[in-house]
Amino acid sequence: MKEKLTVVKVGGKIVEEPSALARLLTDFSALPGLKVLVHGGGRTATDMAARLGIATQMVGGRRVTDAETLRVVTMVYAGLVNKNVVAGLQAHGVNALGLTGADMDVIRSHRRTGGEVDYGFVGDVDRVDADMLAVLLDAGVVPVMAPLTHDGCGSLLNTNADTIAGETAKALAVRFDVTLVYCFEHAGVLSDPDDESSVIPRITRENFARLAADGTVSGGMLPKIENSLQAVEAGVGRVIITRADALGQSAGTQIG
Amino acid sequence: MKEKLTVVKVGGKIVEEPSALARLLTDFSALPGLKVLVHGGGRTATDMAARLGIATQMVGGRRVTDAETLRVVTMVYAGLVNKNVVAGLQAHGVNALGLTGADMDVIRSHRRTGGEVDYGFVGDVDRVDADMLAVLLDAGVVPVMAPLTHDGCGSLLNTNADTIAGETAKALAVRFDVTLVYCFEHAGVLSDPDDESSVIPRITRENFARLAADGTVSGGMLPKIENSLQAVEAGVGRVIITRADALGQSAGTQIG
Repeated sequence: MKEKLTVVKVGGKIVEEPSALARLLTDFSALPGLKVLVHGGGRTATDMAARLGIATQMVGGRRVTDAETLRVVTMVYAGLVNKNVVAGLQAHGVNALGLTGADMDVIRSHRRTGGEVDYGFVGDVDRVDADMLAVLLDAGVVPVMAPLTHDGCGSLLNTNADTIAGETAKALAVRFDVTLVYCFEHAGVLSDPDDESSVIPRITRENFARLAADGTVSGGMLPKIENSLQAVEAGVGRVIITRADALGQSAGTQIG
Repeated sequence: MKEKLTVVKVGGKIVEEPSALARLLTDFSALPGLKVLVHGGGRTATDMAARLGIATQMVGGRRVTDAETLRVVTMVYAGLVNKNVVAGLQAHGVNALGLTGADMDVIRSHRRTGGEVDYGFVGDVDRVDADMLAVLLDAGVVPVMAPLTHDGCGSLLNTNADTIAGETAKALAVRFDVTLVYCFEHAGVLSDPDDESSVIPRITRENFARLAADGTVSGGMLPKIENSLQAVEAGVGRVIITRADALGQSAGTQIG
């Protein structure tokens, strides 16, 4: 029997808005067992860039990260957002440790090249060091991961938080029974986008094809579910898509 | 025989200027044995505050830290400076981990109150968790500490990097043979401030009184040496005051 472990990914809105953050800290602290938190921070990064006179360019929902923008996201993700979450969790008795992929070399990546868009300092994950994370987890430490990785040659790289959560969950699944929870703004994957009560309770490889074909699931939800199914196929016990304020409840959409 | 451990403190100038940082990364990586790096970052914090339209107020060399300034130093110290040092050390094969005092609760402090000046979110150190640091050191990890601590109630606090280095060295001295190296802009404590070759090789409690009385040592150097002598009296093997580019050489002023 592998020990249970929960990887929770929360978007920027949750960690950037004081009342939502307070609720998250309470709910995450109450989660039983081993756990890892992965956070975003894009809204604050965009605000901070604007205050510094740096234009933000997004392509397909991804931030084009030039050298100046890399400095901003490093300040915001690894500094402001990460350390406030860590200090907040410590106040709740959770022995949190903030990490980027460079810290203890936990996530190595390479700069994305080719393709039609030059995203700049954006990294695609090569590997997550589950052994090092296990040393921390064994010592009672709760990793809090900012969406930054490194190339091993001295450069930090901006990396999507969903990807970090997925890759971390897959790497940890070798030794733990992992539940990956993606918190977003809806109660789950909805069959009717205007009805929060229309949560699809479970999506498997079998019914996903039908849901995609008949248009029930579309747009940005398609790659999210595809990635979740791949995580389950790679050994993650289950993926839950739910609202942050339902963390720890039996709610949302289970993938796999 | 206790294992040797070196705590190196470098000021902001060293980690903020690319060529000085490159030199530091090389020299620090070459240091044998267990090691801890403590860094500042005040100049970048002041620049960033100015770019954000936040006035910087210094009193007696210490930064008055209101809520906005705390956000800036959290971004700069824990984000920008710390993570660039960590990524740079990783490129040199050093398994660095960036920490504030909130991370793994390694340094708890309380907000400074009383006194004539309200410094705002500035923390005086209560304790350093040497056990947690030892877990990291045993795992081959090199802690890289930003000058921030926390109060255990959710607030980060700005804390002088010299103090963090001194308190960390004292806490680690219980289990390690600690050398504490303060890197600054001169070759050591100088008997003639205009002559870099006039380094006083050693200052002990015995000759310190005379050097202070005859004015050889004065100003900001007096508390620095007093704190260093106290560190030695509290169990730190030796304190060295030297230039960053002399790190690892037998140079500078030995205290104690």
